[in-house]
Amino acid sequence: MDEQNLVNPDVVKAVGDWGGYVEAKMGFRNHWYPVRFSKEIDEGQIEIVKVLGEQLLLKRIDGKVYAIRDRCLHRGVPLSRKPDCYTKDTITCWYHGYTYRFQTGELVNILAVPDSRLIGRRKIVSYPVEEAKGLVFVFVGDTDEDNPPPPLAQDVPPGFLDEDVMVLGKHRVVNSNWRLGAENGFDSLHIFIHKDTTLRHYRHFNFPIGHTPLPGAVELVQDADGPKGVIDDFAQHHPVWEGVIDGRVVVRGPRTPNVSGTSASVGTSIWLPGVLKVAEFPGPGLTQFEWYVPMDDKTHLYVQTIGCPVASEEDRNTFAGEFESVWKPHGLDGFNGDDIWAREVTEPFYADDFGWVDEMLCEPDVTILEWRRLASRHGRAIQTPAHLR
Amino acid sequence: MDEQNLVNPDVVKAVGDWGGYVEAKMGFRNHWYPVRFSKEIDEGQIEIVKVLGEQLLLKRIDGKVYAIRDRCLHRGVPLSRKPDCYTKDTITCWYHGYTYRFQTGELVNILAVPDSRLIGRRKIVSYPVEEAKGLVFVFVGDTDEDNPPPPLAQDVPPGFLDEDVMVLGKHRVVNSNWRLGAENGFDSLHIFIHKDTTLRHYRHFNFPIGHTPLPGAVELVQDADGPKGVIDDFAQHHPVWEGVIDGRVVVRGPRTPNVSGTSASVGTSIWLPGVLKVAEFPGPGLTQFEWYVPMDDKTHLYVQTIGCPVASEEDRNTFAGEFESVWKPHGLDGFNGDDIWAREVTEPFYADDFGWVDEMLCEPDVTILEWRRLASRHGRAIQTPAHLR
Amino acid sequence: MDEQNLVNPDVVKAVGDWGGYVEAKMGFRNHWYPVRFSKEIDEGQIEIVKVLGEQLLLKRIDGKVYAIRDRCLHRGVPLSRKPDCYTKDTITCWYHGYTYRFQTGELVNILAVPDSRLIGRRKIVSYPVEEAKGLVFVFVGDTDEDNPPPPLAQDVPPGFLDEDVMVLGKHRVVNSNWRLGAENGFDSLHIFIHKDTTLRHYRHFNFPIGHTPLPGAVELVQDADGPKGVIDDFAQHHPVWEGVIDGRVVVRGPRTPNVSGTSASVGTSIWLPGVLKVAEFPGPGLTQFEWYVPMDDKTHLYVQTIGCPVASEEDRNTFAGEFESVWKPHGLDGFNGDDIWAREVTEPFYADDFGWVDEMLCEPDVTILEWRRLASRHGRAIQTPAHLR
Repeated sequence: MDEQNLVNPDVVKAVGDWGGYVEAKMGFRNHWYPVRFSKEIDEGQIEIVKVLGEQLLLKRIDGKVYAIRDRCLHRGVPLSRKPDCYTKDTITCWYHGYTYRFQTGELVNILAVPDSRLIGRRKIVSYPVEEAKGLVFVFVGDTDEDNPPPPLAQDVPPGFLDEDVMVLGKHRVVNSNWRLGAENGFDSLHIFIHKDTTLRHYRHFNFPIGHTPLPGAVELVQDADGPKGVIDDFAQHHPVWEGVIDGRVVVRGPRTPNVSGTSASVGTSIWLPGVLKVAEFPGPGLTQFEWYVPMDDKTHLYVQTIGCPVASEEDRNTFAGEFESVWKPHGLDGFNGDDIWAREVTEPFYADDFGWVDEMLCEPDVTILEWRRLASRHGRAIQTPAHLR
Repeated sequence: MDEQNLVNPDVVKAVGDWGGYVEAKMGFRNHWYPVRFSKEIDEGQIEIVKVLGEQLLLKRIDGKVYAIRDRCLHRGVPLSRKPDCYTKDTITCWYHGYTYRFQTGELVNILAVPDSRLIGRRKIVSYPVEEAKGLVFVFVGDTDEDNPPPPLAQDVPPGFLDEDVMVLGKHRVVNSNWRLGAENGFDSLHIFIHKDTTLRHYRHFNFPIGHTPLPGAVELVQDADGPKGVIDDFAQHHPVWEGVIDGRVVVRGPRTPNVSGTSASVGTSIWLPGVLKVAEFPGPGLTQFEWYVPMDDKTHLYVQTIGCPVASEEDRNTFAGEFESVWKPHGLDGFNGDDIWAREVTEPFYADDFGWVDEMLCEPDVTILEWRRLASRHGRAIQTPAHLR
Repeated sequence: MDEQNLVNPDVVKAVGDWGGYVEAKMGFRNHWYPVRFSKEIDEGQIEIVKVLGEQLLLKRIDGKVYAIRDRCLHRGVPLSRKPDCYTKDTITCWYHGYTYRFQTGELVNILAVPDSRLIGRRKIVSYPVEEAKGLVFVFVGDTDEDNPPPPLAQDVPPGFLDEDVMVLGKHRVVNSNWRLGAENGFDSLHIFIHKDTTLRHYRHFNFPIGHTPLPGAVELVQDADGPKGVIDDFAQHHPVWEGVIDGRVVVRGPRTPNVSGTSASVGTSIWLPGVLKVAEFPGPGLTQFEWYVPMDDKTHLYVQTIGCPVASEEDRNTFAGEFESVWKPHGLDGFNGDDIWAREVTEPFYADDFGWVDEMLCEPDVTILEWRRLASRHGRAIQTPAHLR
């Protein structure tokens, strides 16, 4: 990786007020990112994850998950290659015995050099971890005792942390830059690729071939101490029901009797550091929250979740059943499966950054431009190759 | 790909009067190239080809083949990933409904944004297409209504378009730069690698271990309105029948009683933009025409054809039978199979361009130098990474 | 490969007095390297090897091994692709008949151009070859009649050439830079990764979890006309028998009753151009000599040998039997197998050179720093991409 030029500087300049977004090819630093579901990390278990190009080692100790960099200070080897955990709280490098405490990152011993002056004076990078709604979030950034991370609530969409909401989901690796994931999700026109979705058999909805925002559809949310995002209200969209070529109708978006609405959802919103909220989707009363977590500049972890309001154990069981039988196979796998290949075939055009200037956006893409500008303004910092050293 | 330096500029300078040839690593632009045989593209069928680094989408409509760039203007995705052809004349991008007319490249609609100002005002790149002698040629270059492409006849060897000639052939992808293909073919010394050809069992010919041009053998053809090429007349070559090491004959080129001639062919010629003509080869009365079509800087499409004069349907059937039973298996596959691996193992030496200055040519290679100079003078333009944006 | 910047120049500057070692990413030039065992090259047989990025062709002729560059002067193709040896002493390029003498590299003929002015006036690179102790050594560097290579004895550890020593071994390709091999071997702390070695069942030895040099342990050998190396005497090391974390003993190195010594060996030494000597190892009375021969900047040939003093044919047979049944499977394969994966997982941290400044060495690593400095002072020359042209 080119230390100096991860991103073509001419392209950054050319795009003007969203240059920061172009620079954030490996993601925005100093934000919270979900990396696993809580149930995937049992007590005492070690898990390896990659976020913003950094490889992390997670371990659950006495119920709480801790995260440190998976790279020994001494010779840079991954501790995970052969994890030597002689005590519950520590991991010892298999190569020369450098031993780190999970909770603090502190170098607590070098087994073969017990009197080294390094002991107690050096730390491996450790990452703040929080668990919420069944997800494990890590904060990738620069923190210390004087600079704690901002609250998780500032980095998730409104409503995600609501007490009465039950969240279920899955995750998978997608071979595209994270921004192509975010833009694919927020893009109101891309409904065109979903026209054959099997989801149609499991719920009633209108499904235009496209819909475009009318004035007033888009709202920016930029309160100083809250999450930053762009809201697109589909109720203020103009739906298109028929596709016409050379005067002939060639494709029709089906309308369902007695169902109102201009789309499969009532609206979407996109939030820093790259998470989408889709209201009333994939089913009535549900909300889809999905993250595009940068793993490196070419890959993202697609963390897909569905939130459902629940008031009782029976509600929880009902939702869990429907999730497994309908929403996961026909929504997260089927419907979103089309999104995944769309992102992956878009990747080559943007891989050398020129796509950001060579693309030819059309009018409804103004919502995407708002997102690029907002992200450039409010992304807390940009991850660079120097952070990986 | 490095936008600025596809080719090492020091090397371009060092080679002097054939610098243009070194620069043309991805081929010469503004020329006609064969990409498929006509019979490979049926009515209504779509075909994807790569030429000079550009990916094209071909479709035959009402008998005529049209070609457009296989990359949507909007987000740069390949239209071919999921071709949506709602009408005979158009293709609609599967992602957001941008719809293009094959005949003109015009953006005729955006299905979900029927009132977009882009419609009717933007074009995808379209390529002139001609069919001749059973081959589909595309013109990769810069044309418009005021600047039509030059006639195809300027980009094929003399005789190829003759009315009484029937042409059959095949094509395959070779993992070397196109120039190593052209030089392998035109190189009179490389007969050395063919000394064990099975073609020998199917025709009588003399087969020296090498032959080198005498003064007068080489002729340049540079008429303003005709094809540009270098002709090498083997009748004016000095054949070598015995290879000698340390005074001992170690290898002999067989001579056939009652057969005159210094080689398996009576002469070759090489023409812009990279096509070889081999006279009286692979059999008496036949002519081999073969193209080295740059697919990118590392790969070429080897389009191999044999032309045979025919006067009747019976002649056609006879040639078609011999082509399948002899000339294809023992010529295009067997004999030229050796050429293919020769090019592929030569590739690494030239891949970083230094091969052009580090090679150590010998006297007969003067014919190759003439070709490099002619190509540098008459190649209409050089394909660069900027053309791929 | 970047002609100008194989190694990051900022890193070379930053490391100070061992910059030459950092620059020697492809190895030190003008040194002797073992590439095969003598028994692997029979009379008349051709063998291809890669050293310092150069591909060589070896052939044994009348008992003696000769080496030339495996790349034809004419068009840069590997002669080995289809070796045409018409006479015992020569090889003829399969492509155009350029013919070279193995003993001198001289271009003795071009079969098809017997009167070329190049004949007798050009040479392919040839390499001095010596055989010793069953190994074939080549000298990769700049020699001619006036500048013969230095004696082999200057490039092997003391004792290796001793007359009464019998040497057996094996070699394999390791996917790491050669320096990570050298440092892994010389590193006295890395005994930690061998704590479960099966070698323990075949000999009695003490096995601390680590041991660190006391003042006086390290000796530099830099005589003008002898091998240059660093000796580390384990008798002057402080062994650590117990690993402690948070006041608790978590791992113990076993001590064997009636066996003295602080390690499995009594000491190691590392010599230019990258060869380790391990005394009294893998068994009592034995010496392990192992080379880390740079194949290119990412790969080395790990040449593992064991020397045993022998006084009779019976001694030779005994050692040969023990080598096959114990030392090869449990030492070279088992014990050193752990070293190999350790080097390979260390490679990514150093691949972009930043590892040399980002590593965090501890006190005992001073021995490794001595080696880096000595290599920078006495390495005869640095192999660069320009040498590969």
